[in-house]
Amino acid sequence: MSEFFDASFVPAALARETDDRAWARAMLEVEVALAAAQAEVGLIPASAADAIASAADAISLDPAALGREAARTGTPAEPLVRALRAEVGGDAGGWVHHGATSQDVVDSAAMLVARRALAQIEPALAAVAESCAALAERHRATPMLARTLLQPALPTTFGLVAARWLVGVDDARRRLREVAERRLAVQLGGAAGTLAVLGADGPAVVSALARRLDLGEPTLPWHTLRGPVHALAGALDEAAGAAGKAALDVVLLAQAEVGEVAESRDGDRGGSSSLPHKRNPIGSVLALAGARRAHAAATALTGTMPQEHERSATGAWHSEWAALRDALALTGGVAATMADVLDEIEVDAERMRANLEASGVPELEAETYLATAGAFVDRALERRR
Amino acid sequence: MSEFFDASFVPAALARETDDRAWARAMLEVEVALAAAQAEVGLIPASAADAIASAADAISLDPAALGREAARTGTPAEPLVRALRAEVGGDAGGWVHHGATSQDVVDSAAMLVARRALAQIEPALAAVAESCAALAERHRATPMLARTLLQPALPTTFGLVAARWLVGVDDARRRLREVAERRLAVQLGGAAGTLAVLGADGPAVVSALARRLDLGEPTLPWHTLRGPVHALAGALDEAAGAAGKAALDVVLLAQAEVGEVAESRDGDRGGSSSLPHKRNPIGSVLALAGARRAHAAATALTGTMPQEHERSATGAWHSEWAALRDALALTGGVAATMADVLDEIEVDAERMRANLEASGVPELEAETYLATAGAFVDRALERRR
Amino acid sequence: MSEFFDASFVPAALARETDDRAWARAMLEVEVALAAAQAEVGLIPASAADAIASAADAISLDPAALGREAARTGTPAEPLVRALRAEVGGDAGGWVHHGATSQDVVDSAAMLVARRALAQIEPALAAVAESCAALAERHRATPMLARTLLQPALPTTFGLVAARWLVGVDDARRRLREVAERRLAVQLGGAAGTLAVLGADGPAVVSALARRLDLGEPTLPWHTLRGPVHALAGALDEAAGAAGKAALDVVLLAQAEVGEVAESRDGDRGGSSSLPHKRNPIGSVLALAGARRAHAAATALTGTMPQEHERSATGAWHSEWAALRDALALTGGVAATMADVLDEIEVDAERMRANLEASGVPELEAETYLATAGAFVDRALERRR
Amino acid sequence: MSEFFDASFVPAALARETDDRAWARAMLEVEVALAAAQAEVGLIPASAADAIASAADAISLDPAALGREAARTGTPAEPLVRALRAEVGGDAGGWVHHGATSQDVVDSAAMLVARRALAQIEPALAAVAESCAALAERHRATPMLARTLLQPALPTTFGLVAARWLVGVDDARRRLREVAERRLAVQLGGAAGTLAVLGADGPAVVSALARRLDLGEPTLPWHTLRGPVHALAGALDEAAGAAGKAALDVVLLAQAEVGEVAESRDGDRGGSSSLPHKRNPIGSVLALAGARRAHAAATALTGTMPQEHERSATGAWHSEWAALRDALALTGGVAATMADVLDEIEVDAERMRANLEASGVPELEAETYLATAGAFVDRALERRR
Repeated sequence: MSEFFDASFVPAALARETDDRAWARAMLEVEVALAAAQAEVGLIPASAADAIASAADAISLDPAALGREAARTGTPAEPLVRALRAEVGGDAGGWVHHGATSQDVVDSAAMLVARRALAQIEPALAAVAESCAALAERHRATPMLARTLLQPALPTTFGLVAARWLVGVDDARRRLREVAERRLAVQLGGAAGTLAVLGADGPAVVSALARRLDLGEPTLPWHTLRGPVHALAGALDEAAGAAGKAALDVVLLAQAEVGEVAESRDGDRGGSSSLPHKRNPIGSVLALAGARRAHAAATALTGTMPQEHERSATGAWHSEWAALRDALALTGGVAATMADVLDEIEVDAERMRANLEASGVPELEAETYLATAGAFVDRALERRR
Repeated sequence: MSEFFDASFVPAALARETDDRAWARAMLEVEVALAAAQAEVGLIPASAADAIASAADAISLDPAALGREAARTGTPAEPLVRALRAEVGGDAGGWVHHGATSQDVVDSAAMLVARRALAQIEPALAAVAESCAALAERHRATPMLARTLLQPALPTTFGLVAARWLVGVDDARRRLREVAERRLAVQLGGAAGTLAVLGADGPAVVSALARRLDLGEPTLPWHTLRGPVHALAGALDEAAGAAGKAALDVVLLAQAEVGEVAESRDGDRGGSSSLPHKRNPIGSVLALAGARRAHAAATALTGTMPQEHERSATGAWHSEWAALRDALALTGGVAATMADVLDEIEVDAERMRANLEASGVPELEAETYLATAGAFVDRALERRR
Repeated sequence: MSEFFDASFVPAALARETDDRAWARAMLEVEVALAAAQAEVGLIPASAADAIASAADAISLDPAALGREAARTGTPAEPLVRALRAEVGGDAGGWVHHGATSQDVVDSAAMLVARRALAQIEPALAAVAESCAALAERHRATPMLARTLLQPALPTTFGLVAARWLVGVDDARRRLREVAERRLAVQLGGAAGTLAVLGADGPAVVSALARRLDLGEPTLPWHTLRGPVHALAGALDEAAGAAGKAALDVVLLAQAEVGEVAESRDGDRGGSSSLPHKRNPIGSVLALAGARRAHAAATALTGTMPQEHERSATGAWHSEWAALRDALALTGGVAATMADVLDEIEVDAERMRANLEASGVPELEAETYLATAGAFVDRALERRR
Repeated sequence: MSEFFDASFVPAALARETDDRAWARAMLEVEVALAAAQAEVGLIPASAADAIASAADAISLDPAALGREAARTGTPAEPLVRALRAEVGGDAGGWVHHGATSQDVVDSAAMLVARRALAQIEPALAAVAESCAALAERHRATPMLARTLLQPALPTTFGLVAARWLVGVDDARRRLREVAERRLAVQLGGAAGTLAVLGADGPAVVSALARRLDLGEPTLPWHTLRGPVHALAGALDEAAGAAGKAALDVVLLAQAEVGEVAESRDGDRGGSSSLPHKRNPIGSVLALAGARRAHAAATALTGTMPQEHERSATGAWHSEWAALRDALALTGGVAATMADVLDEIEVDAERMRANLEASGVPELEAETYLATAGAFVDRALERRR
């Protein structure tokens, strides 16, 4: 993520939830919750947990410096833990990160970041769906040319086109929600994935930690079981692709020779400095670019599945962090951009009719296709109730 | 898929369910079921549906010839429909493919092929899980060295290693089952996705067709809504990766310098023509190769999400067929190979203990780590009950 | 590769050069050339080399059976060598595959297959370039609307559009030629990559083998140095993408609402069974699908670079075979298809002018843009002389 | 790129050459050089060119703000040009960006950034090669076990292992150098790719611009001819993979059970906070992670080849920027990290000999394999002279 390249792809609020500082803060929260969970089950003194919580509030983090130190041990967790221990000081400092390994902190923090990002991605996708539903309803009977292989096929309605976008987005939302509910789990296994240091209290600590972080409780530590990351990446990719489908149709329908929709000129978006006559569907173009980038990030994440023994040795795990951030931020960006685009899209029903008439497609009884297309629109809308 | 390269990746029975003939037969079944569904709702004569069913039984298909003819219209459905019409002949011939478009047939057939392939993939994955569970139980208290970044970490047990494989595979199976149950849907939309030709009977025909083919009923035709394909590809990829995780650990543990497991010499597998002393973990190597190929195929499928208007115009849809076949066949192959490997794997508990002792890792109370690792093994096993 | 799915993507002659039988034959040729090279330097009896050559001519190969046996050792080379030894018989049989390892045979055969496939791919690309050059020349001054972000920009000429396709294809051809000349090397390293069995004669045998197979002589055995495969895959991918660029423009210009080009109706290609009014740019659609598939295959190949020690242990090498075949066959298919499409493309200069006039783009002096566009066309054409 | 995640992947100096500010500065340089080139051929007043150069020196850029404004038009070039025009002011301001389009500026700047990054990547790769050459020479006759499929094969030498790394890196360097010399070209085509606004002076301006920016002169504007980007991405990917090959071998040889090499404990790198006994090959692990990420970025870049008409409409171009930065920065990071690792690597020749003897591989005459392996080492070293 870079401000220069990504500010037009990712909304500021989502960028903040996924940036360096957000990750570092999430790692601190994991340490705080871990200490609290251990105090809760009587494994460490409550006073130590309190001291750790206070220090985490007070500490001033420099993510860039942590990043540079990460080269020594391979993760930013180690310098962060060291810094937190120093901030806590005394005996309590010794309880920081008790029984945990660096990957516990990074993975749990990643899941926190993911959950918070999803809390912004989901409303953006919902807004896309709402706009699609509104368009489907409004244009339930707006005749339009269906195009297959970009050639005129038969009549359809713009309502059905919008209903199709809607179903794609709603399907992806359901998948994303299920992944969020079932597969985002806390990570806690300790150096060897046995939690031996915590002895018989291990399972209780995992439960308490999961509850405190509002994450799922895994069957086993998943240091080298990357199913959760794979499932999340896939769901994000489907969501970006589903919103991207609407973007693609907008770009094609906005061609001057087609002219059936246009992005709003809101705030002068889509203008061209060199060609004042132009009206580019720039939101949709950027959404498509974002969907391509989200797909690349998701593919990087789904390609790291077989990892060695108890901890990845050939870079698979270390390559996940930036890709996860990208997948979250870009998917949310695609959704937010298309929510904007579809909320204000201009539909030219006259041009749709004119193109249909000029197309030379066989005459169908309007009554018939309006009825069958309308029935499909209704199905798509009913499913939402 | 090629016999030379793929026979060692894909079991013969699964190859048969996904080969050229299987796809062509599935396309015929779709046409037969479509006619039957239309007869059921009174849209076409029952006698026509019967004639179509008989002709589909009688017709002799040449998939290669159909493939060559596909270049003219872009899909093998068109020449197949033509051949079937000719075989049926007479008035009944006119009812073949009534109201449908080529993609209806190809997509519905793809879902049939997928369902049948899954009927072989799932038992193979179940067998992998069974072997893992048996190993986890048998070696619940077999001490072993945990390795992180391929370096000695702390003690664990082989039972926990096997339990980890088990959880990975079981998680992937659950995802695959859910995709199979919820997202494999029949395709029927006609030339423009409105089913206008079927008039008010459209929805009833879709229902009947779905029931007859034992596939889900979609909200809308999904010609350019590729979520179902995306979800299936992702679930297959996770399954191949989960089995691949076990394969990777086997390859690493089978290193001569480690020597903790070995693939069985069953049928001389793993021998080397030039080096008789060698004992290669060839099943696991091929499974890892298969998992890489399955990932490539899955990625090709997840990369085709935004498709144009009512039918893909830039090759996205046309590029799915071979990739779907590969993803199905290779995932099943990985599972079948690892089911074999794990069923007969030789575990050297003595060597595990010796390596652990030689590793110089801190002495932990055996009691402690056997208890905590054992508790995790139990969790993994209990989840299956 | 499958006949059903791939016959419309890959010309029959190229399919034959890359199919199972072609690979198995190439492997035999490698064994024959190896024996001849060894006889040449006096390492084995000339009579043994002759006997091996005769047996290779006489032997009847069943690629499918070899493929099945490959599961035992992980490569089809081992059963093939065994079969050849049996066919040769006697003492001479003992000299088959002398000092070589299975990967020597498979990799050298892969390079042979690649060279032969390139001998078909290159003329197909040359034909694409020729057609582009002819179009560029013929339409040097045919005014047309330039479109950016699919919106009207300013005037250009169709000649410059075709010249752009030309430059893309010519650049890719140059890269492909260089890879063919410099990086396709014979493989010969023996079991450990030292060629120890051949003693001081090793280098001379490598030279002779390279000469006999008309392949390059590598600095070292490249069993786990996959640069040659990476470079080849990349060059194929650029070629498929360059031809795909022309295909994409054709699909877009062929839209009914644009109507500036059309694929020829030669042999009824592009018709639709359900919609007789349609005229699909099916060649270009299939070429785009082929380019997507070629990219997926190339990506699989470029993703296998770091391989373990002296021979890949985690499936990277074993995953290359099918991907290499696909990359070769599909790139050639894209080129052949576009050579056809562009050879017969119908250009509607009237419609181009009409669209330009209707576009509302600023009036430029035709003299000016015809001159500047023409100058670019000339540059592209001159570079070919 | 993020400081938290990427500081351990990318050297600070290379990060500076590829960061937001570097891109924005490069874009300014393009505008300055464009004006100078146009003044040179007499197209604009020399005083305007001077004023533009002065303003570019004086202007204070906020890349983040430019990034946010980019959402309106789709590229950061437009707000940057606007800011520069304002800074120049007066009549001279009107000559800023004369005849150019946004993509001209971004693409030319991307090539500048690439050239500068390559000026750091190449020495890092050279250092890797130097270290490999030194190891190859020093260990020319250090016996060691060759391993195929991670199983003992036959004896080799560590010198040959290092020579293999060397050849891989040198091959990749040659390819990268050729791409740098031949394919990094300036971009200048104007709004429609015809340079019509520059009239007959267009070609001379392109030449002068190329000369001033020390970039190649393209045959045609390459707005939608992405061969240069494809070729660059591929060459970077091969380089990262070639260095990654060495990293993979180091990780495997550093396994405690193998123990033949170790990364230096320089500056405490490779320690573990929780396990003081550990000595992780963390440089190599991070290099492998970087190679995976570089491959993902390169794949994103090679996947954008077919772009629409005169300017990409479906996000392909817009998705290139961040991927190009990643590919450059990460490849350089892999090289720099491995240069460090190999410079200080500890080689345990005793352990190599002991492992070889314990391996049970057939006894070869040491004389023989030392001679054949040595001959290969010499070939690899000689090629460098």
